[in-house]
Amino acid sequence: MSQYLNYAIQLAQMVDGQTGVNPPVGAVVVNQGRIVGIGAHLRKGDKHAEVQALDMAKAAANGATIYISLEPCSHYGSTPPCVNKIIEFGISKVVYAVKDTTLSSKGDEILQNAGVKVEFHHKPDAEALYKDFFITNRQGVPEVTVKVSCSLDGKQATDSGESKWITNKTVKQDVFMLRHKHDAVITGTGTLNADNPQYTTRIEQGKQPIRVILSKSGQVDFTLDIFQQPTTPIWIFTENKNLKNQDKNIEIMYCSNCTIENILKQLYQNGIGRVLVEAGPTITSEFLQSNFTNELILYYAPKIIGGSGDNQFFKTENVFNLSDVPQFEIVNSKMLEQNIKLELRKK
Amino acid sequence: MSQYLNYAIQLAQMVDGQTGVNPPVGAVVVNQGRIVGIGAHLRKGDKHAEVQALDMAKAAANGATIYISLEPCSHYGSTPPCVNKIIEFGISKVVYAVKDTTLSSKGDEILQNAGVKVEFHHKPDAEALYKDFFITNRQGVPEVTVKVSCSLDGKQATDSGESKWITNKTVKQDVFMLRHKHDAVITGTGTLNADNPQYTTRIEQGKQPIRVILSKSGQVDFTLDIFQQPTTPIWIFTENKNLKNQDKNIEIMYCSNCTIENILKQLYQNGIGRVLVEAGPTITSEFLQSNFTNELILYYAPKIIGGSGDNQFFKTENVFNLSDVPQFEIVNSKMLEQNIKLELRKK
Repeated sequence: MSQYLNYAIQLAQMVDGQTGVNPPVGAVVVNQGRIVGIGAHLRKGDKHAEVQALDMAKAAANGATIYISLEPCSHYGSTPPCVNKIIEFGISKVVYAVKDTTLSSKGDEILQNAGVKVEFHHKPDAEALYKDFFITNRQGVPEVTVKVSCSLDGKQATDSGESKWITNKTVKQDVFMLRHKHDAVITGTGTLNADNPQYTTRIEQGKQPIRVILSKSGQVDFTLDIFQQPTTPIWIFTENKNLKNQDKNIEIMYCSNCTIENILKQLYQNGIGRVLVEAGPTITSEFLQSNFTNELILYYAPKIIGGSGDNQFFKTENVFNLSDVPQFEIVNSKMLEQNIKLELRKK
Repeated sequence: MSQYLNYAIQLAQMVDGQTGVNPPVGAVVVNQGRIVGIGAHLRKGDKHAEVQALDMAKAAANGATIYISLEPCSHYGSTPPCVNKIIEFGISKVVYAVKDTTLSSKGDEILQNAGVKVEFHHKPDAEALYKDFFITNRQGVPEVTVKVSCSLDGKQATDSGESKWITNKTVKQDVFMLRHKHDAVITGTGTLNADNPQYTTRIEQGKQPIRVILSKSGQVDFTLDIFQQPTTPIWIFTENKNLKNQDKNIEIMYCSNCTIENILKQLYQNGIGRVLVEAGPTITSEFLQSNFTNELILYYAPKIIGGSGDNQFFKTENVFNLSDVPQFEIVNSKMLEQNIKLELRKK
């Protein structure tokens, strides 16, 4: 029944954002109309969703159907292939919602050759869940969300640099949820010096992101609040070979050419599957011009700031033709009290 | 019953935008549970809503209750006082939703002295309808709506001036409705030269706004499309005494000091109750900085334009403190296909 596949997708959605470079997956084992096992992939390196569900079902998995949000893997990664486990447990039918385009071998065939029926039921909401995963997995870079809090006229701060607080408290809470759903937050020294932020997730049971600071020059003020908070590691990307820090929590990542692509690839190799860019106009505009931004979250406060626009969030040296400007698709729009949240996907 | 008062308010909403400097008003006459007359004020100079409803009811108004969206007038304006007419027709009770703060004498007393019961039932949706009317009537200026079509980063055009078309066709239709609801559209020569627009209402039975062009210098190119369209008058405000045009449809309004306040006062004296500002960054920013903007309509296209921001919609010489920037209240937010419409009221 399609409802079990929906449950598997719901399980995947629950762990969305906590699986690093791995996709979020949910699985449900059903035998004679009763759920006998449920599973979700909780963290890279942990059991896959299918294995968790099968381990819960034990003998009841024999002759059962397993519903999975994503095609089961057939390769040795951090864990053995799921298709083997499915066959071992005597599952009679596999139903999944999305084909995994990152897989090299054909799991379907392996299963069918072992006498397991396989059904693929296309589910758009599951597909949306994996869209970025497929792209970033192929490119070897994390999924990138750019977050901007600004005035209606697109400014992150007044000309004099005042930016505390453009948006309201409800936005702040929403940003904590965003951080919770990302492995790392990227910012620059400009924002650190101006706002002295900590990039923590102040919600109960919230996941704290790794804090990534971009500073080509290596001019970093280590007395700032962020460096006094050992909640999660801080990684500083710099082109300055002389930048040093003794703090165990702080890691200096030297790169001879700190392009966005190089930084993102290095982050991915370090297990970062999703990054949230929370930075000032320069870094924000760099990411928005790059090909690596998957999602843009805009929080608008009902203000207009004016001035010359030194701190407008998208300011570029290039003047684009209107047909060439970055285009987005509006996925969701909602009011957060008197602020507006727009969720957009890069087209 | 409150439902009749709601009907009166609905009638007022139907004529909102076609009554010039007069408020939109609706009225319903009810006798023994049956509606015997309905009326709405259709245009300045025409019968008031109450009079229309009473004329429709004729003898059935005797002993009836009249429900009106706004307190009935007790003064001689373009027409005789409505309270007299209500007494003449033998109405036994008057129920209205909003007190008219622009009235000098007390209609309630006149009615009560004549033996007519008077009830005031406060209705927030009716109050919203008259909020701007009371302010602008006191100040002797029209209600001002500023309309902006822009990118997510607040730009009306690229640095090279390309602006056709940032927003989509659904927005265009929505703008036709906006024009329909305003007596006049204000623009500048910059926008005329760049876009060659006509400011017409291309919807069936749409009201065409008077077209107001601001040109201090009087450098006007009379070969542009707008001047070839005699649908409605064109008024040009200028400080240039030498600007002349023979076309009957075009009126040159000379002012020695063309401030926004002076222009608005002159428009109001000419019967303009509502103006829609559809202009480029300079005029738009001037209006948004003035105290005369009541409403801001923002249409965002899901694009980011970048560049230096020469054509950002709110650009000012003043740098405001964040606590002093113009603040708005979000009244409504909706998707127009892939564009976002925000309706905001100046706080």
